[in-house]
Amino acid sequence: MEALSTHRCHGGTLGYYQHQSAATNCAMRLTAFVPEKPSGLGLIYLSGLTCTEENFTVKAGAYRTANALGVTIFAPDTSPRGDDVPDDASISLGKGAGFYVDATQAPWNVHYHMYSYVADELPHLLREKFHIKKFGLFGHSMGGHGALTIGQRNPQLFESISALAPVCHPMQDGWGPAALTAYLGPDKAHWAAYDATELMAHSAGDLPPILIDQGLEDSAYKEGRLNPEAFRDACARVGQKLQLRLHEGYDHGYFFVQSFIDDHLRHHAELLGA
Amino acid sequence: MEALSTHRCHGGTLGYYQHQSAATNCAMRLTAFVPEKPSGLGLIYLSGLTCTEENFTVKAGAYRTANALGVTIFAPDTSPRGDDVPDDASISLGKGAGFYVDATQAPWNVHYHMYSYVADELPHLLREKFHIKKFGLFGHSMGGHGALTIGQRNPQLFESISALAPVCHPMQDGWGPAALTAYLGPDKAHWAAYDATELMAHSAGDLPPILIDQGLEDSAYKEGRLNPEAFRDACARVGQKLQLRLHEGYDHGYFFVQSFIDDHLRHHAELLGA
Repeated sequence: MEALSTHRCHGGTLGYYQHQSAATNCAMRLTAFVPEKPSGLGLIYLSGLTCTEENFTVKAGAYRTANALGVTIFAPDTSPRGDDVPDDASISLGKGAGFYVDATQAPWNVHYHMYSYVADELPHLLREKFHIKKFGLFGHSMGGHGALTIGQRNPQLFESISALAPVCHPMQDGWGPAALTAYLGPDKAHWAAYDATELMAHSAGDLPPILIDQGLEDSAYKEGRLNPEAFRDACARVGQKLQLRLHEGYDHGYFFVQSFIDDHLRHHAELLGA
Repeated sequence: MEALSTHRCHGGTLGYYQHQSAATNCAMRLTAFVPEKPSGLGLIYLSGLTCTEENFTVKAGAYRTANALGVTIFAPDTSPRGDDVPDDASISLGKGAGFYVDATQAPWNVHYHMYSYVADELPHLLREKFHIKKFGLFGHSMGGHGALTIGQRNPQLFESISALAPVCHPMQDGWGPAALTAYLGPDKAHWAAYDATELMAHSAGDLPPILIDQGLEDSAYKEGRLNPEAFRDACARVGQKLQLRLHEGYDHGYFFVQSFIDDHLRHHAELLGA
């Protein structure tokens, strides 16, 4: 893993990194904020549609509190990249829209393995390079979908989960069906492993408490693309503890994310034992 | 003044605005963060080379503390804009590089009146529209130059001044001489009114305390383009109170700005009486 640049920030260090990924068969970028006094707790933040490794780092305003808590934060890119990586004109398929799945359908199945990248390859690399002892997982929008699905499927690895304005039921809503059809084929039986609500509905409901924040003036929410209510109902049926906070006046962007990000850092720090 | 968009943020509201400016003869954009409980204190933040009204708003992470302090923050664009506004291939002349002067030389003298815009037109508009009772002025890099010069020349209007990595002696250093020659002509007698160090050297040294932060790994600083030492020496000679803080390891960008921005907000709030 090569450091492309580093910047002192809030007493810690923010770095841009690049490494060759076996999971995605291409070079992947991420940012890492390492606090002045790292506690060994690492959070992986998954970004939304159109984002790169940079959006969270530049816009979320998370590093003052991360430094105070001693938490290391990693923000990987949202898809494979490169001239030989297939793409699509839509913002919700291809580059910037990996949907945190392992694609099985051509032409996506060569590089689009963001599930394995986040659930397996990346934590192994980070544990070694940054001396991480415990991981939490969170994300925004499509990245909230990634956090809720990858987190549910890997509870030993990710000991805390949260999400901001997550896509909660992609089998049914919004950008999900088109993307899942392209990446996984039309058989919906293959989609359920990548749907937070489906996973929760068939779980024991025994994960640590999950925190979700949602703005009520979020156009994606109002158009039914996010559907936190479906996830909330699934949690209620299986007895999973969930704090779903609805915020009047807030929209979908990083002005919303930055307003509540500190609460997410504290949520993870508490569950991970900072 | 027309609101292009508004976003709830940290309990307050961030808006993008546009208005026709008499000073610059074109449409000008700015952002305004209005806290939940405005105190009537308004800060104008001036950005650096290549920036627009957006850089500070997205990258500085200032609005949590601004909301807590009840301070309204305005971030105008750094130059006139539009197809009929002259430009230059250099990043340090033309669009994005207004240098906060009133240009007297063709072709710049039609639109490049950023001094009058910040020192006169904009505060009048903001006082009325946002009910501002007292103003402070701060900025970064070229915008730090703007804050130190416009603030010194208008002490009745701007009752507090601070800067992050400011250009302190543009008559002599870095990007200054070429830009001042283009905007004001070759006679250096016309430059002194736009040079923070010159202004300070000939002042009574009776302004409220000024705060400046400077990173020691800032490449512009290391290349001699900023020269806070010249301004510090001028302050010392006239007895002006200055707190110049030098920070090991910090560079010139917004990872530096966000690390110290809260101290600047508190500096202004204290002097303005929040």
